[in-house]
Amino acid sequence: MTIRIGILGYGNLGRGIECAVKQNPDMELAAVFTRRAPESVKILTPGVPVYHVDDAISKKEEIDVLILCGGSATDLPVQTPEYAKYFNVVDSFDTHARIPEHFANVDASAKESGKVAMISVGWDPGMFSLNRLYASAILPEGKDYTFWGKGVSQGHSDAIRRVEGVKDGKQYTIPVESALDAVRSGSNPELTTRQKHIRECFVVAEEGADLAKIEQEIKTMPNYFADYDTTVNFISEEELKRDHSGIPHGGFVIRSGKTGWNSEHQHIVEYSLKLDSNPEFTASVITAYARAAYRMQKEGQCGCKTVFDVAPAYLSSNSAEDLRAHLL
Amino acid sequence: MTIRIGILGYGNLGRGIECAVKQNPDMELAAVFTRRAPESVKILTPGVPVYHVDDAISKKEEIDVLILCGGSATDLPVQTPEYAKYFNVVDSFDTHARIPEHFANVDASAKESGKVAMISVGWDPGMFSLNRLYASAILPEGKDYTFWGKGVSQGHSDAIRRVEGVKDGKQYTIPVESALDAVRSGSNPELTTRQKHIRECFVVAEEGADLAKIEQEIKTMPNYFADYDTTVNFISEEELKRDHSGIPHGGFVIRSGKTGWNSEHQHIVEYSLKLDSNPEFTASVITAYARAAYRMQKEGQCGCKTVFDVAPAYLSSNSAEDLRAHLL
Repeated sequence: MTIRIGILGYGNLGRGIECAVKQNPDMELAAVFTRRAPESVKILTPGVPVYHVDDAISKKEEIDVLILCGGSATDLPVQTPEYAKYFNVVDSFDTHARIPEHFANVDASAKESGKVAMISVGWDPGMFSLNRLYASAILPEGKDYTFWGKGVSQGHSDAIRRVEGVKDGKQYTIPVESALDAVRSGSNPELTTRQKHIRECFVVAEEGADLAKIEQEIKTMPNYFADYDTTVNFISEEELKRDHSGIPHGGFVIRSGKTGWNSEHQHIVEYSLKLDSNPEFTASVITAYARAAYRMQKEGQCGCKTVFDVAPAYLSSNSAEDLRAHLL
Repeated sequence: MTIRIGILGYGNLGRGIECAVKQNPDMELAAVFTRRAPESVKILTPGVPVYHVDDAISKKEEIDVLILCGGSATDLPVQTPEYAKYFNVVDSFDTHARIPEHFANVDASAKESGKVAMISVGWDPGMFSLNRLYASAILPEGKDYTFWGKGVSQGHSDAIRRVEGVKDGKQYTIPVESALDAVRSGSNPELTTRQKHIRECFVVAEEGADLAKIEQEIKTMPNYFADYDTTVNFISEEELKRDHSGIPHGGFVIRSGKTGWNSEHQHIVEYSLKLDSNPEFTASVITAYARAAYRMQKEGQCGCKTVFDVAPAYLSSNSAEDLRAHLL
């Protein structure tokens, strides 16, 4: 029996889920739900219905896991607790500071309905969190570091676009190579925000705009750019489209720790991602965790779960015997 | 309440467990069991008793998790099923091909006793296996590669020492840099044994030995060296002691995979370890899984488990709330 997946919200992430489901023979896409007029939404998979989001709950018998592809600011805090009343759900809630509150809300819903609701699935939170946890449990005497990039930050790109005189723009977060090297050396450096990442902006200015003023405004923008070494490059609209239309990302989680009776031995554990498409990779992680949600609920579990609560074997379509024989 | 750890077998790995327990405030070392005369075994922790292995079972009420530090060839196939009748146990059984058989034997014992028995814990099998599983579940369209080193291979060092005219020796397994680069490029190369690793030997010859003959014999040794580019360096006993007495190791697990409707996007997931002390790092992994074994059994689970079956949260001494708030 295949796992029937529903997608709620058909943007970059939703489309990524659709692509990931295609790669997993034990799954099928059952339906897409959208806030737009359903007939206006063209999806990639032939024969799969697109419904209005208002019809989602009425389709609950046709969906094993509903994947919520909305945003963390306003969509998911409402949607995840709501849909966990009716479905096993997975979301990619990524406002780190609000995870405890989101967990509590979702857990209450999912405990009542007997469903499994996985929150904050993706790569950070997600795979990076897992690597922080594994490495710190193994090497309690140590320090971990997370670096992001090189990759496009949507939030920072949006911030650039709000500057007066800016027509369009893209921002790359780039880890500082010398900081990575210092961490890998095991010296456990204390690194400031500025020492860890640089920010590179590609900006299309409106005709006649004051470029110096734009550059100054970006570089001094609090929270977003002021604490970083930021470079601003003005380019044409054509160049932006040609060279900067991808959504790459990635990063590094590195833990350096000591063992031995006198802490005489040093160890470096490093996990890194280099992603051509941030939303498609995130979607691929979510899809694997949708399999886990389905299986865990079948086994009688319920409530809110994070990647920390999921035994790795649940993620794979292979049997436990097969995993032990071939991957262990 | 602290978790009371017993160590069975006090060699490099056993001593590594002792050091790791010291770093984990929720654990205490309760006893060491040895096949040697107990009074001849000096351990590092003050006040902890050393018993003969024959007395282990009589101490079962004083131990929450017994860590089995024997070898995979002959010790663990007997010890793990035997001690799982009386204790929660963890072993580092690393004969990959015999894991299914070992699992079945241990599972039968642990199911009957109601204990949790974790097998094949360490870094390979162990953390490397986990990374193979996570990455392949996330990127089903892809290929994974495992490289070992730079590090000391005990088995290959032993093989050198068996050659006539060799007094002592150490062998390093070294990944081929160009192979790593090819894998990281996403080109999914097919790599032969020879293309992936080189073997570097440091040999102390007996006085008057035929060096050319030793070199030839090592380089052509089937299974161990014949399929590799092997270098043999003759050094003095003093140099061996000075420069090659450590037990470093490490390696890389890399998966390269594609996503997108037409597999148009590429992703590289890489996990690497750089370890000053192979046995101490292995011991640190085992110690974290001892915590998991203890907790899982407290919750009513039993039987044989591998790293694939353990939800990551069980490994950490921090509470679930704390992990969500700070590591997720």
